[in-house]
Amino acid sequence: MPKRNAFYAQSGGVTAVINASAAGVIETARENKQAIGKVYAGRNGIIGALREELIDTSKESKSAIAQLRNTPSGAFGSCRHKLKSLEENRAEYERLIEVFKAHNIGYFFYNGGGDSADTCLKVSQLSKTMGYPLQAIHIPKTIDNDLPLTDNCPGFGSVAKYIAISTREAAMDVASMCETSTKVFILEVMGRHAGWIAAAGGLAAEHEGDAPHIILFPEIAFNPKKFLARVKRCVKQHGFCVIVASEGAKYKDGTLLAGSSHKDAFGHHQLGGLAPTLAEMIKSELGFKYHWAVADYLQRAARHIASTTDVEQAYAVGVAAVKMALQGKNAIMPAIVRGKGKRYSWSIGEAPLEKVANEEKMMPRNYISRDGFGITEEARAYLQPLIAGEAYPTYSKGLPRYVRLKNVAVPKKLKNSFAV
Amino acid sequence: MPKRNAFYAQSGGVTAVINASAAGVIETARENKQAIGKVYAGRNGIIGALREELIDTSKESKSAIAQLRNTPSGAFGSCRHKLKSLEENRAEYERLIEVFKAHNIGYFFYNGGGDSADTCLKVSQLSKTMGYPLQAIHIPKTIDNDLPLTDNCPGFGSVAKYIAISTREAAMDVASMCETSTKVFILEVMGRHAGWIAAAGGLAAEHEGDAPHIILFPEIAFNPKKFLARVKRCVKQHGFCVIVASEGAKYKDGTLLAGSSHKDAFGHHQLGGLAPTLAEMIKSELGFKYHWAVADYLQRAARHIASTTDVEQAYAVGVAAVKMALQGKNAIMPAIVRGKGKRYSWSIGEAPLEKVANEEKMMPRNYISRDGFGITEEARAYLQPLIAGEAYPTYSKGLPRYVRLKNVAVPKKLKNSFAV
Repeated sequence: MPKRNAFYAQSGGVTAVINASAAGVIETARENKQAIGKVYAGRNGIIGALREELIDTSKESKSAIAQLRNTPSGAFGSCRHKLKSLEENRAEYERLIEVFKAHNIGYFFYNGGGDSADTCLKVSQLSKTMGYPLQAIHIPKTIDNDLPLTDNCPGFGSVAKYIAISTREAAMDVASMCETSTKVFILEVMGRHAGWIAAAGGLAAEHEGDAPHIILFPEIAFNPKKFLARVKRCVKQHGFCVIVASEGAKYKDGTLLAGSSHKDAFGHHQLGGLAPTLAEMIKSELGFKYHWAVADYLQRAARHIASTTDVEQAYAVGVAAVKMALQGKNAIMPAIVRGKGKRYSWSIGEAPLEKVANEEKMMPRNYISRDGFGITEEARAYLQPLIAGEAYPTYSKGLPRYVRLKNVAVPKKLKNSFAV
Repeated sequence: MPKRNAFYAQSGGVTAVINASAAGVIETARENKQAIGKVYAGRNGIIGALREELIDTSKESKSAIAQLRNTPSGAFGSCRHKLKSLEENRAEYERLIEVFKAHNIGYFFYNGGGDSADTCLKVSQLSKTMGYPLQAIHIPKTIDNDLPLTDNCPGFGSVAKYIAISTREAAMDVASMCETSTKVFILEVMGRHAGWIAAAGGLAAEHEGDAPHIILFPEIAFNPKKFLARVKRCVKQHGFCVIVASEGAKYKDGTLLAGSSHKDAFGHHQLGGLAPTLAEMIKSELGFKYHWAVADYLQRAARHIASTTDVEQAYAVGVAAVKMALQGKNAIMPAIVRGKGKRYSWSIGEAPLEKVANEEKMMPRNYISRDGFGITEEARAYLQPLIAGEAYPTYSKGLPRYVRLKNVAVPKKLKNSFAV
């Protein structure tokens, strides 16, 4: 088999550990020089391929690539750009193939969530249609933990850990102050459709009655009356009330609590503003003094307290993607498979992309307590191993040392440019 | 000298390291059993004394007290309750003395910020007026870093570290996404009047042009035109713009950007909502896609990434307070004194309370860059040692192990109750 180059791109919202997957891909490709030439990364994700803006990762030192394992964000840039269907925008797919041909790319590694799995599948299909041999492997990444056919998604464990820790810490703060000051604390967390991240806040509780006292999931219709009654009862019982609320929390009719008319490039609503909305509701109906926090990017970038399980799995799916490609596989995704034993274990399996793309895995109902405001023991058993271990980065002058790559451009070979 | 008991109380907003000061007090008192009987802690701060709700810390194990060093929040509860002047509410002071007499309390350790220093001073003065011998020592604590006569305040270094790390991490996230998505990120941080915490965000930058690109200080009047021009230029130049904004940022006439009519028990305005205000301004004037985060309690409770310098200093002022009391001192505060050498060093000095109380230390103008949007090398040199070192707590099941004390009540001796 003639030696061919690989293309790697990061897609969608970045995470604390997506670069660990990049490290897995690049290091494994470097170990297999007999089959894989260079790994080119897309500058700003897939649009880097469309624009022929490729980064030559062979220019990075071994140590720089190793440091990716400890560096949050997307080292090559990511993007929110969803390729349309072949019928709607065939030109984009043809451009991709054109660029891949020009740079002798035979492996396409796409590191993202559900939308990217869909793109990856389409690229694979087109390569067949157009008679250009290309192996397309999707590498799972999403803090939302909503991909099907994998036990969990790299990126989620670290956010889960951050949210669980932050909830525990902030709750202790409120407990100290509640006698004369703040009675209600609201932490707004990410999770557009699935409540996995909000659920992780539930891990902060050790004993019955511990904070968080209320979790709001997108999966459970928000009932203001029931919610306010619970807040009131909680303050009466514990002196304070801690709420972890998913940004995707919505009313029965599907209206978001924090409605917003913004949409991102994938057509998703841009959310935020839920915490102040809830705070206002509590203040006007119950009169309690409140505080609220919106973790936003802090949660998904918090490499300083990443979960060891998460970092290891993110790295492993990167390694597995390259190995699967070398085995001639196509249109698949390395998946995380949980062992059946009582003690947590995991291995890497594989999932066909046509079953992964555009499907969202919600919290199962039995992970949510009957009243809809908490997590069950089943959820706890599922979540806990995912936040295990502290994969600390190294520090210099009190701050984490994160690598900044050189990101040297690959000289362009095509004459025509392509507007994205 | 007959053996007398000590009273210790936590006051105002709690921090990641105020319990380290408590550990310093209790452990040092235990080492000096010849002079100090028991250490009684106020349940929920000073109101615990007023209500005669005392906690017997002698019921806590050696290991539990040692673990306070690694536990955020206020282990005995804190409160926002400012004692008025002697003329306005003599009854409260007389009640304090009554409770202290009943429990043979000869040492008053008050752990708080400027308002508490003032209370501590008044208690000391009253003990003289009323002929009840009491040594009142104030132990500095405030994330705002605004106490005079001390190089810095325990509690600040850990918030500073958290904000610097979070700014660096979130900025890397935005940098990855800015080509097609978020262009502006705003992190709202605490700091009612002084911009120390916002300034700490500036440590995230290593090189010229690094994020954060704009810092908003309460000390610098907010000029919307200048601000928006800077945001626009920054996005043009770097592709994105990261802003760290102090909750206390205000217009030239003193109006807060995020005005609110709430006031806390000290008469301070309750702030918050600045980040969405700025975001709205940027969206409507410049049209950039934005994200914002409000760290709120997360920042001051973040013991998981506390600064080693901060933890050590918080412990040291607790130890020093007891030693000063044993030396017969009164109406003073142990202060942190920075060594003169090039290499950072510190020692404990003492500051008279009449010079500490009710005074706020703002950022000096030479710590803020000429344009008012950044920090200078002087600020960097001052701040950097305060965030040095990672004083990690221990973990169990992926979460920090924080101690929960038994907080056993001291039997009441007084017949009358006292409404607070």
